[in-house]
Order: sequence, then C-alpha cells, then structure tokens
Amino acid sequence: MIDINKANAYVVERFMEARPVATTMAKAIEVVPGLHENMLLHAGPPVTWERMSGPMRGAMIGALLFEGKAKNPEEAEKLLASGKIDFAPCNDHMASGPMAGVISPSQLVYVIENQTHGIKCFSNMNEGRGNVLRMGAYKEEVLNKLRLMESVVGPTVKSALEAMGGIDIRMIISKSLHMGDDGHNREDAASILWSIQMAPIIAKVAKDTQTAHDVIKFLGENPLTMLNPIMAGCKTMTAAGDNVEGSTIVTVMARNGTDFGIKVSGLGNQWFTAQAPIVKALYFPGFKESDACRDIGDSTITETAGIGGFAMAAAPALVTFIGGVPRDATNTTLDMYEITFAEHKQFTIPALDFRGTPTGIDILKVVEKQITPRVNTGVAHKDPGVGQVGGGVVSAPMKCFEDAVTAFAEKYGL
Amino acid sequence: MIDINKANAYVVERFMEARPVATTMAKAIEVVPGLHENMLLHAGPPVTWERMSGPMRGAMIGALLFEGKAKNPEEAEKLLASGKIDFAPCNDHMASGPMAGVISPSQLVYVIENQTHGIKCFSNMNEGRGNVLRMGAYKEEVLNKLRLMESVVGPTVKSALEAMGGIDIRMIISKSLHMGDDGHNREDAASILWSIQMAPIIAKVAKDTQTAHDVIKFLGENPLTMLNPIMAGCKTMTAAGDNVEGSTIVTVMARNGTDFGIKVSGLGNQWFTAQAPIVKALYFPGFKESDACRDIGDSTITETAGIGGFAMAAAPALVTFIGGVPRDATNTTLDMYEITFAEHKQFTIPALDFRGTPTGIDILKVVEKQITPRVNTGVAHKDPGVGQVGGGVVSAPMKCFEDAVTAFAEKYGL
Repeated sequence: MIDINKANAYVVERFMEARPVATTMAKAIEVVPGLHENMLLHAGPPVTWERMSGPMRGAMIGALLFEGKAKNPEEAEKLLASGKIDFAPCNDHMASGPMAGVISPSQLVYVIENQTHGIKCFSNMNEGRGNVLRMGAYKEEVLNKLRLMESVVGPTVKSALEAMGGIDIRMIISKSLHMGDDGHNREDAASILWSIQMAPIIAKVAKDTQTAHDVIKFLGENPLTMLNPIMAGCKTMTAAGDNVEGSTIVTVMARNGTDFGIKVSGLGNQWFTAQAPIVKALYFPGFKESDACRDIGDSTITETAGIGGFAMAAAPALVTFIGGVPRDATNTTLDMYEITFAEHKQFTIPALDFRGTPTGIDILKVVEKQITPRVNTGVAHKDPGVGQVGGGVVSAPMKCFEDAVTAFAEKYGL
Repeated sequence: MIDINKANAYVVERFMEARPVATTMAKAIEVVPGLHENMLLHAGPPVTWERMSGPMRGAMIGALLFEGKAKNPEEAEKLLASGKIDFAPCNDHMASGPMAGVISPSQLVYVIENQTHGIKCFSNMNEGRGNVLRMGAYKEEVLNKLRLMESVVGPTVKSALEAMGGIDIRMIISKSLHMGDDGHNREDAASILWSIQMAPIIAKVAKDTQTAHDVIKFLGENPLTMLNPIMAGCKTMTAAGDNVEGSTIVTVMARNGTDFGIKVSGLGNQWFTAQAPIVKALYFPGFKESDACRDIGDSTITETAGIGGFAMAAAPALVTFIGGVPRDATNTTLDMYEITFAEHKQFTIPALDFRGTPTGIDILKVVEKQITPRVNTGVAHKDPGVGQVGGGVVSAPMKCFEDAVTAFAEKYGL
C-alpha cells in the first residue's frame, strides 16, 4: 500500500533542501543532456510545427537565423517545416526557458547546480524587455542583441561566475521576497542582487574596462536579468522531487502557447496537457486581448517550486505590471495554501508574518478543492515576429490535474 | 491675519517638488557653509562637551584622530574639553549626519543638489555596520576604514558621479519603497539601486581594476550605503520649506543622544528641545536597554520628509531589525497620517494601495491628537568607543511640539 503523505513529504522536503548555485556558463550543446546539432528546445509540453503558436514559431525562426542555419525567415520556416529539425521541451532536457523558451545548440546557457542533490539544470540569458526572441521577435536588432550577448556578455559572466565560485540562487530568492519580488514577473530586486554581487568581479575579469562597463550595465539595467537563472534554479529544486513512487506533487508546469502541461512526481515522465488558457492581462498601449497568444513559457517552474504567483503577497507592486490591486496578490497566495502540501522553509513572506510560501502543488487537493494553480506571466503577441503585448494572471486548466489524478488512480490501483 | 493652511500647503508642496541629485563629492571644508578648520559638526540640536552623549564624544575623539589634530584619545579629549574646538549641528550647516553625525573639515562629503530649488546639502559616506565612527567607535580599525574611504572610495565615487551626471535620489527613494525599504533603517534596495547605477561607471573611471573591484564591493555590500545621500537628499527637501511665514510644518527633527530637537518652518532657526528618549529596541546578543545611549542622529530628517518610520508600511521585513511584527509597521504609518498635512505625490506604499506616504508633520495636529512622530533608528552604546547595540522604534517627545505651538502662538499673536 502506498503512503501518499509520506511520499509527498519526501518530495517537498527535497524541493526545499535543494540549494541551486550558478557556477558557470557553457554552450548548450556541450552541457544540455540529449541536445544535438539539429534540435531546438522550447517551452511547455511537446508540440509539432503545425500546432506551434506564433511566438514560438517566431523564436524558432530567429534561432535558426542566429545559428546560421538559414539566411532569411522564409528559408528558416521551410527548414522548420521539413522535419529535419527536432523539437523537444526544455523540461525534458533539464532546462527551462521563459516564454517561447527556445534554446539552440550554440547558445550559451547558465549551468545551475543543485549542490544538495547534485542535479544540474540550464537556462539561457535574459534579453531584457522589448522586442526579444523569447517573445517571438526575430528582426535584425533582436539577432544583433543575441550576438552581443553571446560574444560579450556571456563570456564575461562565465569568467565572473567561475572566479567568484558561483552565486547562491536560493539565497537571492529568499532576500528578494523581502524586497518586493515574487520571483517570477517581478525580479527587480533579485536582478540587482545578482548584478551587484557579480559587478566587482566583472570589473576585474572583463577583457577591458569598456567591456566591464557594458556588461555590468546590461545586467544591472534589466529587471529580468535573474529570471532565467531563477527558473533553472527552480527546475533543480523540483527535479530533485521527480519520480518518487506514490507522490501526487507536481514537478513541472509549462506552456507552449498551444497546450498547458504538467508532470507529477509519482507518474514519471508523462505529460498531462490541456489547451493553454488566454491570460487575463494588463495590455501595453495599442494592444488588446485578441492580439494575445495563449499562455506560454516554462517560467511556471517558479510556481511549481513555491514562488511566482504563489508568493505574490510578497510583491504588491507587481500589480502595476499584471493589473488588479495589491489585495488580489495577497489573495492569490492565500488561495494557493489550499492546494499545496507545505509552507516553504527558505522562502517567507514578511507581510504574512513571515509565513513560508505555499509549496508543492498536490493534484489531489487541486481536484478536491477545484482550485488550480494561479500564475503570473508576460503575454506575447499571437503572431510571430511581434513581441510582448502585456502581463497578467492566469489559472492552470483543471483538465491536466483531473487526468493526472485518473492516471494516478490507475497506476496505483486506487 | 496669517493663513496657516495656505502656508503649510506651500511648504509641503516644496518638500514634494524638490528633486535632489547627488552630483559630486568634495572636502567638507570646501563646500559646507560656515564650517571652519577648528569646527566639528554633529547630529541633533546644539550641545556642549559637558552634556554630550558617550557615542558623540567617541565620534568627536575619532574625528580629531582622523584629522591628525590629536595623537591619542586622551589628547583628543583634552582638546575637545578645552573650548578650542567649535561644535555645531549639521542641520545648522545644511548637512545631515547619521547617529553621532560627526563631520570633520577634511572628510569627503556628498554634494546633494535639490535641482528644483537650487539648494545644496551635504553628508559624509556611510561606513557600514559594525564598529564605526558614527556609533562612537574610534579604534584603529575604525580609523583605517575611514582612511580607506577617504583615499580610495570617495575619490572614485566622486569621479563616477561627475562622469554620469549625478544620481537622482528621489527616483531611487520612490523605487525602493516598492522594494521593501522604508528609506531610513532599511535601505537594502536603495543601496544596491545606487551601487548598480554607479558600478558600470566605476569600472571605467577607477584608477585600476582592483580599485574598481574594491569600491563596487564596498558600496554594494553595505545595506546602508545610501543612508547618507538619502538623508542629505531629504534635508534638501525640507530645507526648501524653511522659513515660510505662518507655517506649522516641522522642517527638522534631530537628536544628539542628550536632547531631541525640532525646527518649524514658520519659526525660523529656533530649536525646540526636550530630553531625548530611550529607544524601545531589539538588542544585539549580549546587550540590553541599560547599555543604550538615548536617541541619537540626524536620520529623522527622513521622517520629516515623509519616509522612514512614516513609510514603514512599505517595509514589513524591517521588523527583523527593529522588533515587533509587520502589523506594527503598518499601524505606525497609519498613525502618522493623523499628524501630517499631505500624502506624498512621489513616494507611495504598494501595500496601502499605492497611497502616498504621510508627509509634513504639523505641530498643531501633533498637539491636538497627542500623537508624536514615530521614528525607527539604530541604537548606539551609551559609552564612547563601543558601537551599535541594536535597533528599534521611538516616539518624539511631546514637549518639543508643545513648546513650538506656544512659540508659534506668541509670534503670530494667536
């Protein structure tokens, strides 16, 4: 007879004991398990080219242009539709990518090591706001920025991380939740905590003072600099809870703009998917809901690990980006205690008297309470090549959780 | 017939319109009005050597050792008691100094320019936590740090500020209140916002890469780096409201460890003083209330300008330093609306639905409601040479406000 409670306690304990440290950067193909020359990783559950959302198509096109595998968008599209390029979820390759989440073989990725459990995960660098690949934009300016990141920013950050012996991601998340971040869409504090720790070392290891200046400025001025390392850090936490017999805790939530998918610890590598929802969003001037792509990105790994939407009570100023009032943010956190197994030991919310964040989504509670995980997110334009149109909140589709409960009951003969 | 309401509206509008920018650093004697070779500035209202609190005496001793005017503490004490050194409040010389607040002639000070009203104020550099001059410590390690700050940190920061055209202090305060700071004892966010803005420039202008490394690290690792520029910035705001006929708004609150003093716009340069209170504090391990110096420091200029204790609802995590629970912090802010004239247009509190901070202490309201301003503060040991023993909250003594109301009634024949 399985002991679900015991299995879940074990899983969530591993989430919380995980200590992710950013140790270096490396070319994706050299470190990401299973990635090969003709593969592109993407956000969310598996998806074919035919069913792929606009921004993910745009990011795939941009990635092939960046890789030099196509000379123009038309050529890229043809190649992508030819079947010669394999597509695979980041989450199936120990990686995590925001929005379209496209990681290509020659990109530099952060190597994030969970030093408690010896698990390594990966994410690429954050490009900042505006027209960026992860939102599906692929104009020349987008590619030029990527090239600058790969040739100047990445190598300098790599040297700095190695020289300083790494940056403790869990400690930064903990601090940032006391500084108005939620760890997902508001990373203002985390991003400068990360940048200011690295800045003195960059001043020493950069190849010249102009490079030091440029790299520190690039990191320090982007309020999302730490999104990607935090996502890979959260992935190392939840991956520590993968594949535990009898556990009903969610270890992956991810969306590709077409489908929303989850994985459950006691159900191995199986994806449970449903149509990705439309985000209730605050739109940038000139955009409206009919411009929006369905929910997209691997950044829901933050909520899976107990931050992001689940920690919104720590981030009342986030409502300026996602809409609503601060009380909504608090209520979201309070609701999430209903569907989680534990309160986080490392991540606390000052405004709730330092209560630990709701951690470890339990599919049984989700279905029983009929409350699905709430996440906050950026919103991409539905067409390739445009970019971000807003930010908002969204609830995961119940079907993923219901299907998972059914599969769990079947597998364990309940 | 005076129109108090109109005068107060004018004063508080000037507080809020002030835009302090840190433009450079300079030797105090070259820029601080009225400062001369044999003068030491200090926190709070005027005080004689005989009545001076322990930590202020300690800081005075340290300052003379630093200036080379004495070879040892005994020689310094003798000189200080001889009448050959003039003592004067920072606040009477357009300056603001935390804790003992001692500013000596050859120290480098920040030049903070209120660009709306053309008012310049000054403060020295923050030494960080631990054994520091401002807490009354003067051991060799304290002086060595001061020398490093004067010879390496200060000149580099000066070059950086000049190269970047200054740093907008009001903008940083606004942001930091959305990042869990109160603008007084919790400046974790402000200090790294300041440091990360300056870091890229420091990487370029420092005399070598080791210096760039050391200075960025010094600034970035001190969570109080921005306390002093913010204090001088607040001083430029409240100074913009000085000497307005008929106004009952407080423009200075300051303590010297012996007396608590205030100034009122419509009452010119007169100090209204009362015994400084003992702070209700969270003590560091090994210390207790009987070790504490009475309330000390010019940092109450932050509360005078509408932040600090008045903005504590923005900083629930501050209670880890000053004691109490987050609800106390919120209640403090709510109480302060009772005794202030306006809600700040630039400084808002997300958790209170972005309500402006309570701004402009009105002595009439203080006396009518029998609520005095509440401030949060560090606590120094009562003896010279020891240092900080805790942090806490304290209410200003009612007598200052009652005496000011009496003087106001007399002056204006009410």
